[in-house]
Amino acid sequence: MDCDTIWTSATLLTMTGGAAGESVVSQGLVAAKNGRIVYVGAADAAPDLTATRVIDCEGRLLTPGLIDCHTHLVHGGSRAGEWEARLAGASYEEIARAGGGIVSTMRATREASEEQLVAASLPRLEALIADGVTTVEIKSGYGLELASERRMLRATRALGERCGVTVRTTFLGAHALPPEYAGRADEYVALVTEEMLPALAAEGLIDAVDAFCEGIGFTPAQTERVFAAARALALPVKLHAEQLSNLHGAALAARYGALSADHLEYLDDDGIAAMAASGTVATLLPGAFYFTRETKLPPVQGLRDAGVPIAIATDCNPGTSPLTSLLLAMNMAATLFRMTVAECWAGTTRNAAKALGLADVGALVPGHWADIALWDVESPAELVYRMGGRPLHARYRRGI
Amino acid sequence: MDCDTIWTSATLLTMTGGAAGESVVSQGLVAAKNGRIVYVGAADAAPDLTATRVIDCEGRLLTPGLIDCHTHLVHGGSRAGEWEARLAGASYEEIARAGGGIVSTMRATREASEEQLVAASLPRLEALIADGVTTVEIKSGYGLELASERRMLRATRALGERCGVTVRTTFLGAHALPPEYAGRADEYVALVTEEMLPALAAEGLIDAVDAFCEGIGFTPAQTERVFAAARALALPVKLHAEQLSNLHGAALAARYGALSADHLEYLDDDGIAAMAASGTVATLLPGAFYFTRETKLPPVQGLRDAGVPIAIATDCNPGTSPLTSLLLAMNMAATLFRMTVAECWAGTTRNAAKALGLADVGALVPGHWADIALWDVESPAELVYRMGGRPLHARYRRGI
Ligand SMILES: [Zn+2]
Ligand SMILES: [Zn+2]
Repeated sequence: MDCDTIWTSATLLTMTGGAAGESVVSQGLVAAKNGRIVYVGAADAAPDLTATRVIDCEGRLLTPGLIDCHTHLVHGGSRAGEWEARLAGASYEEIARAGGGIVSTMRATREASEEQLVAASLPRLEALIADGVTTVEIKSGYGLELASERRMLRATRALGERCGVTVRTTFLGAHALPPEYAGRADEYVALVTEEMLPALAAEGLIDAVDAFCEGIGFTPAQTERVFAAARALALPVKLHAEQLSNLHGAALAARYGALSADHLEYLDDDGIAAMAASGTVATLLPGAFYFTRETKLPPVQGLRDAGVPIAIATDCNPGTSPLTSLLLAMNMAATLFRMTVAECWAGTTRNAAKALGLADVGALVPGHWADIALWDVESPAELVYRMGGRPLHARYRRGI
Repeated sequence: MDCDTIWTSATLLTMTGGAAGESVVSQGLVAAKNGRIVYVGAADAAPDLTATRVIDCEGRLLTPGLIDCHTHLVHGGSRAGEWEARLAGASYEEIARAGGGIVSTMRATREASEEQLVAASLPRLEALIADGVTTVEIKSGYGLELASERRMLRATRALGERCGVTVRTTFLGAHALPPEYAGRADEYVALVTEEMLPALAAEGLIDAVDAFCEGIGFTPAQTERVFAAARALALPVKLHAEQLSNLHGAALAARYGALSADHLEYLDDDGIAAMAASGTVATLLPGAFYFTRETKLPPVQGLRDAGVPIAIATDCNPGTSPLTSLLLAMNMAATLFRMTVAECWAGTTRNAAKALGLADVGALVPGHWADIALWDVESPAELVYRMGGRPLHARYRRGI
């Protein structure tokens, strides 16, 4: 068979076997043509292959490129100063009076041009890529008005083109209530569902629709209006659910066939059952758990027992998770949530793909995109275990 | 004045002012000659300077190079597999029976040649350096016999030369009891104090002497024998103290004028007072706290109140802190221990220098080595706040 690229002498982590999806092939080989995988397996079982490029992996570990399925990495401004003040003893009220909190990110994002949003977000995306990420989800939700949400989503698409990474955009108009709608949340939701969502969907800027269902966010009834509007446009939905309390958002999301429900510290058994029945992925965000010093653990054992696929993401955002390393998110999932190494790998590959509705990334399988990370380590466990290392040797997206 | 290098248009974090030593100079300038700083301050207050090299910092933040004052980064083997097994449900006993624990690191270290130790440790040191580290302390203590301890220390010196980083070696023969001395701890301490320590000191391989004073390590009486032997050789001491219980190791260390006492989760008020009186630095190791899921917090407020200088280090080691990012250690100190941004900076610069007995690194002051980190951020808080970023723009050691 005639190929474009062959990777030889690699240890493969295919993510195709077992309950947690970890499977290793020694002395493995991967071949790609037109950016798609055409062979994966033991070198000595491969068919006759020729290629214009042969990459000797010298025994390194070769895995699917990592997938970060929940980020808010595009935004203006920084909240480092506000965090510094809080460490020095300032109260939430003092921070809010000084113009801090999500409103400060909204203001900085509204003031930024598309080019400024790209420039501000580029180092965050580059850091993720340096950790082997080949697919990343990025949410809107700091504009909270049509023009600014559009600018965020356009900047997001531009970043994807610029950085050679597959970007999935999620419209999160229902992220927070902008100050000009204070006391008029239902009117704001109407703006989201009747104006922003149809306009931005028509411009091809939306791959999925999300909302923040929480006491400090939107009610289940408001969330359902967002979901109904998404369904009318045939867009898949996701949900920030059960992060700070149990509003039964995950069950609501499941009723709408959501791709994922995310955070889930306060998820109960009914929510788990609903997610299992609908095939909704549980996306856990240990960076936010760590950074906010949360103590309520998500129900990992319950999700496991019910067979709900678990994804892990950085939640990269300026308020509660200024994290730009997906490997570190994996370590946190293991250390803080006691997830196994195999579960951590499934969480950033095949389950993360499922959380984005993508069927052709997240595993080494013929037909999938040749999105590949090559690591200077011998075993998959090393990458979850070490913190702050720089183990990536090379990264390929769609075979290049 | 004729200089070798001038850095212009930088925001300087000099670490010379205030209780925590944080002080910022806008539009600052640093000049160096023969590797030493000759001017630091506002550009418009500088004397007439000429230099063969002028570096335009374009407004970036310029800080002292970071100092990691507590690591065990030189060793053979990996404990990732053992950690993976534990996450999958294996008990400590099962791990021990399978040859895990510190003994597995000892075995792998004993089996490694000096060159193999250098090769195995290089990625860990390179990761630290990529985070702006210009000085690093590295302990022995996985050889636990003369020849292997020597090989560790020689590999450590070789790494320093190879990587352009200032390395301080600490002899930690009293780290653990090697299996061949089971039940004969006092005999092993005699080997440490009468054979290993004098021999390795005579070879110039030891900058300081350390011990692990703990129920699972050595008793205070045994620790004191190690300290007495160090004192006889005029070597400064340090101590792993009060990590898992309170054996009053910090007070013992203070009696011997120790440079630092490290870990300190179980430190009490008497220990704090003793450290304050002797000028002993408290080195906190949040990576080990995080990775072992410790819940007992070190007495940060007590140390603050008593004026004990606090340092922060990675504790990079295969069993309890596989961490190779000092920036991440700073974030953990802030997030988990509620240290302020200024304290985190002091902890990895001037207080870390003090923990190593070094008087000419850790601040931007005329006469100090020109060890400098240049960062792609606007404020010191950014570097503590972000997790997993790659903010280093350039790094200079001794002006180069
Ligand atoms: Zn989020
Ligand atoms: Zn240690």
